[in-house]
Amino acid sequence: AKTLGEEVRAAPTARIFVTEEITEVSAEIAKALEGITDDRARYDAIDARRKALVAECEAPGGYRCDVYVFHGGAQYFLVRQMEIRDVRLVYAPSNAIGAYGGDIDNWIWPRHTGDFAYYRAYVGPDGKPADFNEANVPYRPRSHLKVQPKGVAERDYVMIAGYPGRTNRYRLAEEVRDAIEWQYPTLIARYRKVLGLIEEHTKDRPDAAIKYASSVMGFNNGLKNFEGNLDGFRSFDAVGIKTAEEEAIVAWAREQAPDGVRGYEEMRSQLAGLRERRERDQILQLLGGMSMMSAARDLYRLSIERAKPDAEREAGFQTRDEPRIKARLEQIERRFDAKVERAIVEWLLADYLALPADKRLPELDRWIAGAEGVAPDATRLAATLDRLYASELADTGKRMAWFGRARADIEGSQDPALAMAVALMPAWLRLEDESKRYQGEESRNRPAWMAARIAYAKAQGREVYADANSSLRVTFGNVQGYSPRDAVNYSAFTWHDGIVEKHTGKDPFDATEKQLAAIRDERFGPYAVDGRVPVNFVADLDITGGNSGSPVLNARAELIGLAFDGNYEAISSGWIFNPVLTRTIAVDVRYMLWVMDAVDGAHGLLEEMGIEPAFER
Amino acid sequence: AKTLGEEVRAAPTARIFVTEEITEVSAEIAKALEGITDDRARYDAIDARRKALVAECEAPGGYRCDVYVFHGGAQYFLVRQMEIRDVRLVYAPSNAIGAYGGDIDNWIWPRHTGDFAYYRAYVGPDGKPADFNEANVPYRPRSHLKVQPKGVAERDYVMIAGYPGRTNRYRLAEEVRDAIEWQYPTLIARYRKVLGLIEEHTKDRPDAAIKYASSVMGFNNGLKNFEGNLDGFRSFDAVGIKTAEEEAIVAWAREQAPDGVRGYEEMRSQLAGLRERRERDQILQLLGGMSMMSAARDLYRLSIERAKPDAEREAGFQTRDEPRIKARLEQIERRFDAKVERAIVEWLLADYLALPADKRLPELDRWIAGAEGVAPDATRLAATLDRLYASELADTGKRMAWFGRARADIEGSQDPALAMAVALMPAWLRLEDESKRYQGEESRNRPAWMAARIAYAKAQGREVYADANSSLRVTFGNVQGYSPRDAVNYSAFTWHDGIVEKHTGKDPFDATEKQLAAIRDERFGPYAVDGRVPVNFVADLDITGGNSGSPVLNARAELIGLAFDGNYEAISSGWIFNPVLTRTIAVDVRYMLWVMDAVDGAHGLLEEMGIEPAFER
Repeated sequence: AKTLGEEVRAAPTARIFVTEEITEVSAEIAKALEGITDDRARYDAIDARRKALVAECEAPGGYRCDVYVFHGGAQYFLVRQMEIRDVRLVYAPSNAIGAYGGDIDNWIWPRHTGDFAYYRAYVGPDGKPADFNEANVPYRPRSHLKVQPKGVAERDYVMIAGYPGRTNRYRLAEEVRDAIEWQYPTLIARYRKVLGLIEEHTKDRPDAAIKYASSVMGFNNGLKNFEGNLDGFRSFDAVGIKTAEEEAIVAWAREQAPDGVRGYEEMRSQLAGLRERRERDQILQLLGGMSMMSAARDLYRLSIERAKPDAEREAGFQTRDEPRIKARLEQIERRFDAKVERAIVEWLLADYLALPADKRLPELDRWIAGAEGVAPDATRLAATLDRLYASELADTGKRMAWFGRARADIEGSQDPALAMAVALMPAWLRLEDESKRYQGEESRNRPAWMAARIAYAKAQGREVYADANSSLRVTFGNVQGYSPRDAVNYSAFTWHDGIVEKHTGKDPFDATEKQLAAIRDERFGPYAVDGRVPVNFVADLDITGGNSGSPVLNARAELIGLAFDGNYEAISSGWIFNPVLTRTIAVDVRYMLWVMDAVDGAHGLLEEMGIEPAFER
Repeated sequence: AKTLGEEVRAAPTARIFVTEEITEVSAEIAKALEGITDDRARYDAIDARRKALVAECEAPGGYRCDVYVFHGGAQYFLVRQMEIRDVRLVYAPSNAIGAYGGDIDNWIWPRHTGDFAYYRAYVGPDGKPADFNEANVPYRPRSHLKVQPKGVAERDYVMIAGYPGRTNRYRLAEEVRDAIEWQYPTLIARYRKVLGLIEEHTKDRPDAAIKYASSVMGFNNGLKNFEGNLDGFRSFDAVGIKTAEEEAIVAWAREQAPDGVRGYEEMRSQLAGLRERRERDQILQLLGGMSMMSAARDLYRLSIERAKPDAEREAGFQTRDEPRIKARLEQIERRFDAKVERAIVEWLLADYLALPADKRLPELDRWIAGAEGVAPDATRLAATLDRLYASELADTGKRMAWFGRARADIEGSQDPALAMAVALMPAWLRLEDESKRYQGEESRNRPAWMAARIAYAKAQGREVYADANSSLRVTFGNVQGYSPRDAVNYSAFTWHDGIVEKHTGKDPFDATEKQLAAIRDERFGPYAVDGRVPVNFVADLDITGGNSGSPVLNARAELIGLAFDGNYEAISSGWIFNPVLTRTIAVDVRYMLWVMDAVDGAHGLLEEMGIEPAFER
């Protein structure tokens, strides 16, 4: 966009959040728990208190608030963010730059991806968040980052401020072992099977193939993640390290923090229970991701929750969640094909039917059988799925017409998908209840154990930082390469030559002629170092999924890049941080500026950022 | 083997050659060509002279002699080698060490392969080559290499003496272009197809699969080579470089060496002719590699040649060649399955039938059609192949019974394979005649052009060294790593840690427990540098296929390793040597000694080599 007027509206669900306030609310939560001994009641008390805190915080309007859990429940923080709803796209490089390397280079270093874009936040003339409106004006933040066009060099100090999603650094040794020995291998096998079924049933059906393109990408990304975790765990004895660590803490804590030892032991017995039903739970979890199942479940559940006062509605089904539920139901239009999904569901339910009877759910057995007192089998299953996939919920118009309908209407419906939801809801609620009891118990055990861990570390003169939980976190380190394996050394920076080297002319290595010409003509301007433009760099910063797009800052907190990925060798760092191998991959600010200036002529934007363009358009 | 007596006999065809004398015979060849103007006669004159030189050289017995062509015919050298026929295996590391990484790591750096073994040459008590006999004694060479157990370090000077097979460094630009645009892509497509047919027709037939295992390995190796060449050519404009070079030489040579320009232009017109029939020639070449075709052809051809005086027999069919022909015919037993080969031949001949009539061979058409005056088509082809693969030559006993039989016997035979050979021989001989005429012409043109190239280089103060031709060559350079692509740097050495890193427990990464235990216990002795044993190293030496096993020497000509591979990035260096990317991969002498000492306890052998073992058995 050359002018504000040319800035186009981003997707209607696009949001910009401005973190305004972070308040510790541990005391409020603790107060809510006073006198409660039952674990299930414990869950409800925490849940109710969090909802109340959020509701109070969001009451003025224009805010999104959340209570974040630290150290498994040892601390709670309420975060208030201004929620800007009018978001416009200012500039994005071509896909051949922004996604250069595509899926092939995903997680990979060395990398040559220009993964950046500019959005602008708009607010009402009063400075407050508002729906999209021509009359809205650019939001003016109290402060903003200064762009440092000189970038950084190898070994420089850098830091990142961002919103890392989730790490599992303080999981027990046996949780790590379960992940390595069971969770990743079974998920890898199931994802591969799902991918195979999608391929088989979209063959010669281009429309269906397009609908499943993003699912395929998601499953492939998951596969690469799981396989990367297993690859990572191969190089060191993670379970052994964790076990030794735990044994040392337990030995110390028996005297110093006995409640931590109790928490540790109770968690281990909780985990043993979980292990008993993990096979069924994994199948149900994958089933829950199927569009027809989730649409019917969400519609019926919403009708149940809507009958309650808002504060008592289940989290995820409150008034504030309704726009997201609606968007999810609408998106099925672009992601669902009955033939493909039926094949996946039929295979998953065949796995379910192979479970021993005491692991199965009576309601699900009965629904599959199609009648009372009949054994569920493959033939009955096929007939049930024939009915299910004839549901009118497959049609977006008809599906959306059910949104917000009363519970009685749904319970009276003859639609096979809604009937399924009604039939299975008791089972779902029972599982949910079990899960809440589990979480209530865990919310006693894990903080006690974490307190012992933290005290033990402190006694040894070390600090323990909390697992990532999607809240704002600053991490720091240095720009540096690494050695992924014997005799192989990766440099800290990649350069424009590497783009040409990887260029094949075919997606995802199809650099644009404009960019190749700028390289051929050596139009590098002030962005090059010794005649080469830096493209991406790596640093030993601790980030994880959710950090993509986080600003990378130099020691003076000036913007010198954007983080967008981690390296394959460090995928398992979600469980144990290995400083030798873990790297953040960032796009270099000099590459961003060079692309904007020499390739795309985004001069206005450069000037707004205080950069004097070096090239004529 | 702990004693001489335990040394086992190597394969009966195993030979050790000791190069004893190298004599330039260019003048003799030139003399033989005096007064000859016809190109076909030229070929015969050179051929006859070479045969005579070889026969004279081999006359005393116990020698293998060959005339090697340099610079396309500018120079000829007669090489005399003592041929030792009693070869015994002294020591080889386990396959898990010697072939660590297998096919996956073939051509790959970083590498961790212990590709070495020890054979011992035995001669008769009189010191002369003799057939295998208990009474034979170890051969005592006039000199031998000294092992330097300290190895080398990064940047050290090293050299290799060995027998590189073939390079194409002085091919014309259009020969390079033909390779890139036609030869490699068509061969890649055909090799893939052949591999697919082998897979299809050996499925659920383990015996057939075993027979084709080495063919599959060969085709895969070829594929990796062709693809590596194309990958290599992608990174620089080889044709452009060659064209510019040629233009400069031609411009200079018009005055200084006009005969070179004539040679250059005539070669280009020769190449144009070759290009016309290359499709057919490639099909025929692949057909020629099929066992049933080659067995029948060899048997019949040998019967024809045997009727002539030895000196007049075709090269490859002289008395001295008979043992090799016989071995080839016997080996078919282990490599041939009628169903698999028939599928490949049927597909190749279908490609042949798709050629325009003027590119086809009347004899082959007639044989496929099965009768005079009938058009060859797929149906006729199938019937002809049904007959062919019922041939008794498929049976080794019956096939070998035909070895050495008279021409008339074969011509009178009813066997369909022998009948095919008789039917096609006129076409084969005609093609051979054309090829000899071509070679005769080339033997005028290429040396003239090479002489101009050499004179041009000399005028610029540079030297031109000859293409590899399987004769002894010394090359020198330095130990050094390289950067295969942006931000990736390979070290010059790999270390024992890398073996553990690659170990999966599954072939080809299945290090032995003995080796892993030696590593775990850090039994490294004097072979380690800073606590790590070097395994392989790379140096910028110019070698090629045929050099495997060549000794790598330090500046004092002491043995510090054995060359066994080149790196993938440099496969195309057969055409253009790229000093930045071309590396020789060698096994480090310290790894050899460590494996012999700490893993296998080959103490006697170490002592014989002047090395004091560091470990008890």
